[in-house]
Amino acid sequence: MEAATTIELLTRVREKAPLIHNITNFVVMNSSANILLAAGASPVMAHSPAEVEEMTSMSGALVLNIGTIQEDWLDSMILAAKTANAVGIPIVLDPVGAGATRLRTGAIHKIMENSDISVLRGNCSEVLSLGSDDIKTKGVDSSLSLSDQTVEAAKQMATEKKCVIAISGEEDVITDGAAVYRVSNGQPIMTKVTGIGCGLSAVTAAFCAVADNSLALATAAAFGYYGLCGDLASKKSVKPASFQVAFIDQLYTTGDEEIRGHLKLKEA
Amino acid sequence: MEAATTIELLTRVREKAPLIHNITNFVVMNSSANILLAAGASPVMAHSPAEVEEMTSMSGALVLNIGTIQEDWLDSMILAAKTANAVGIPIVLDPVGAGATRLRTGAIHKIMENSDISVLRGNCSEVLSLGSDDIKTKGVDSSLSLSDQTVEAAKQMATEKKCVIAISGEEDVITDGAAVYRVSNGQPIMTKVTGIGCGLSAVTAAFCAVADNSLALATAAAFGYYGLCGDLASKKSVKPASFQVAFIDQLYTTGDEEIRGHLKLKEA
Amino acid sequence: MEAATTIELLTRVREKAPLIHNITNFVVMNSSANILLAAGASPVMAHSPAEVEEMTSMSGALVLNIGTIQEDWLDSMILAAKTANAVGIPIVLDPVGAGATRLRTGAIHKIMENSDISVLRGNCSEVLSLGSDDIKTKGVDSSLSLSDQTVEAAKQMATEKKCVIAISGEEDVITDGAAVYRVSNGQPIMTKVTGIGCGLSAVTAAFCAVADNSLALATAAAFGYYGLCGDLASKKSVKPASFQVAFIDQLYTTGDEEIRGHLKLKEA
Repeated sequence: MEAATTIELLTRVREKAPLIHNITNFVVMNSSANILLAAGASPVMAHSPAEVEEMTSMSGALVLNIGTIQEDWLDSMILAAKTANAVGIPIVLDPVGAGATRLRTGAIHKIMENSDISVLRGNCSEVLSLGSDDIKTKGVDSSLSLSDQTVEAAKQMATEKKCVIAISGEEDVITDGAAVYRVSNGQPIMTKVTGIGCGLSAVTAAFCAVADNSLALATAAAFGYYGLCGDLASKKSVKPASFQVAFIDQLYTTGDEEIRGHLKLKEA
Repeated sequence: MEAATTIELLTRVREKAPLIHNITNFVVMNSSANILLAAGASPVMAHSPAEVEEMTSMSGALVLNIGTIQEDWLDSMILAAKTANAVGIPIVLDPVGAGATRLRTGAIHKIMENSDISVLRGNCSEVLSLGSDDIKTKGVDSSLSLSDQTVEAAKQMATEKKCVIAISGEEDVITDGAAVYRVSNGQPIMTKVTGIGCGLSAVTAAFCAVADNSLALATAAAFGYYGLCGDLASKKSVKPASFQVAFIDQLYTTGDEEIRGHLKLKEA
Repeated sequence: MEAATTIELLTRVREKAPLIHNITNFVVMNSSANILLAAGASPVMAHSPAEVEEMTSMSGALVLNIGTIQEDWLDSMILAAKTANAVGIPIVLDPVGAGATRLRTGAIHKIMENSDISVLRGNCSEVLSLGSDDIKTKGVDSSLSLSDQTVEAAKQMATEKKCVIAISGEEDVITDGAAVYRVSNGQPIMTKVTGIGCGLSAVTAAFCAVADNSLALATAAAFGYYGLCGDLASKKSVKPASFQVAFIDQLYTTGDEEIRGHLKLKEA
């Protein structure tokens, strides 16, 4: 079932080429654009308060990513997020470095106080650092492996924040508080290329842009597709730069057979 | 004749390595720099109002690109454009996203009201969105193929705006209102890599920097060289990331024989 | 001895994965991050005055790079530099374009007046343009080859500025005013890829972050490692884009044997 959904959503992305509005960090603007293009979507980057409302209004989804955040960009993110809510398109929020500095943690809280986020996607420490004290405690030993406790923390957080919580790691967990999906595609070399995580947030937005209903499943499908492209690319190279080339190529070429044969996505 | 001119201008770019001052968008800064280096030019990126006049003054051409534009960068672009006019170097203007938001359309109009642009290079909808109502009407059905009507609209616009109009598409058209050049080099995969269009604006600036007279022909030569490098690279790969590698390599290695053998540039 | 030190420092970088805080230019943010990851370090880019103190405080070294500088980023650089001095971590300063515009030359002087820099790394003209009139005169004919006069100028400058002076060129010279190291690894094709020089500043910071004592030797070791990766990658390709892929891959894979066999670093 999950493979069929993944194939269906990827096919729609390629057919509809949804416009994905990214307000993202300087490091990954180029790689996120190339990753979205390879997946079949249409990327646009725009951050000026003078145009984000128009740009978001014509888009299929919004990606907000706080790496290299500065105050005035945060204002634009909130403006875009409110617009996304008004026109009814999904928002994927990538809390790069949340928990590391007050600016970043504060930025995420401010965005989430001022808008309804659809998906919060990051690594375990980033995501759980944004939860209640109870969640932080549960998550504290879980920075590496995906323990039952982490899954519980993610579920609780999804319920509290009323959004999909998507945690990337050796195994990924995606939950809306009710359904829980686990994805075990993906390779360690993916952590040695900058922007691969941010690119997943962008691809998640593309899948959510064309999803009919469950954004948790659409997110999990994006994770599965992305991770299996990593798996297949790692057969070509496990050195970072040539892996990146093979990975983006793979995003472009992956077909139904490869998804059916390699997807490691299951509802838990 | 066109092949000889293309070879002559590319040779000059490689010999003189003209400094090309780019005020461009965050997405493509890295790729534009690498594309210019591969073509033989010397890129510099600088946008602070405190240095753009000095930087433009020591350059051979100026590239203005409004993707990811913000208000203060527009001020710098105008300052740099006025300097370019004062010192007599060509300006290539890339209207990324013109027609999509008021900020972008307005930015282009403001730059063109405050300076004399040499070349306006974009895709059909971007470029014609900047024309008079008459031009917009002519261009309205022409977003995909290069109809006679599009060519007429481009000629009219070149005459009105007193600059070279260069429209990228399946077939490209370049005109200064009098001469019209068509280039049919280039490959669809080039639209799947971010920054390839912006890189063409940069290479156009490098060719214009070393041109003696007709900037329309220099622009067409840049289009031909760029497109045939795409043609040759597509024989190595038609997957986006490996194509990009092959393409930039090809920009670096393309020689006289390849230009004579593959250039599809003609005066129409 | 130098090979053993280079191996030791690279091993430490890979084991400790020091966090390297970069305030760098828009062109190279992505490539510097990938270069640091390939070398084994952990990159972070952050420039907001609201977070640079926190970010620098948790880092192992700070990289300041003034390409695409603007006024408010300079303020953040100085704030970060003061923090680096306070917490006792090394600062590598890359004076991209110093000597070309008053903004850039002034920015470097202002950073150095307000903090103690550990390493100043650039090409000959950039670095010597920042010295006293006496140094500028000595350096004036030395933009290409590494003359004895250039070495003298570098030594004098290191003594005056109380930092390591590291000049990249066909042959590199690194000196703290007392010891002088020369590195003759490296390839011309490295100048045809944007961000390779800036990436060396970042890798130098990673080596300095794990060094016990002599930052001059740590800097020279970084230069040697970086240059020999260029040498080895150039055996795979001497075309710019495929060279870049091979180079970053090589940074990731280079082992003890390759360092022992190919390092061209000597104390002069």
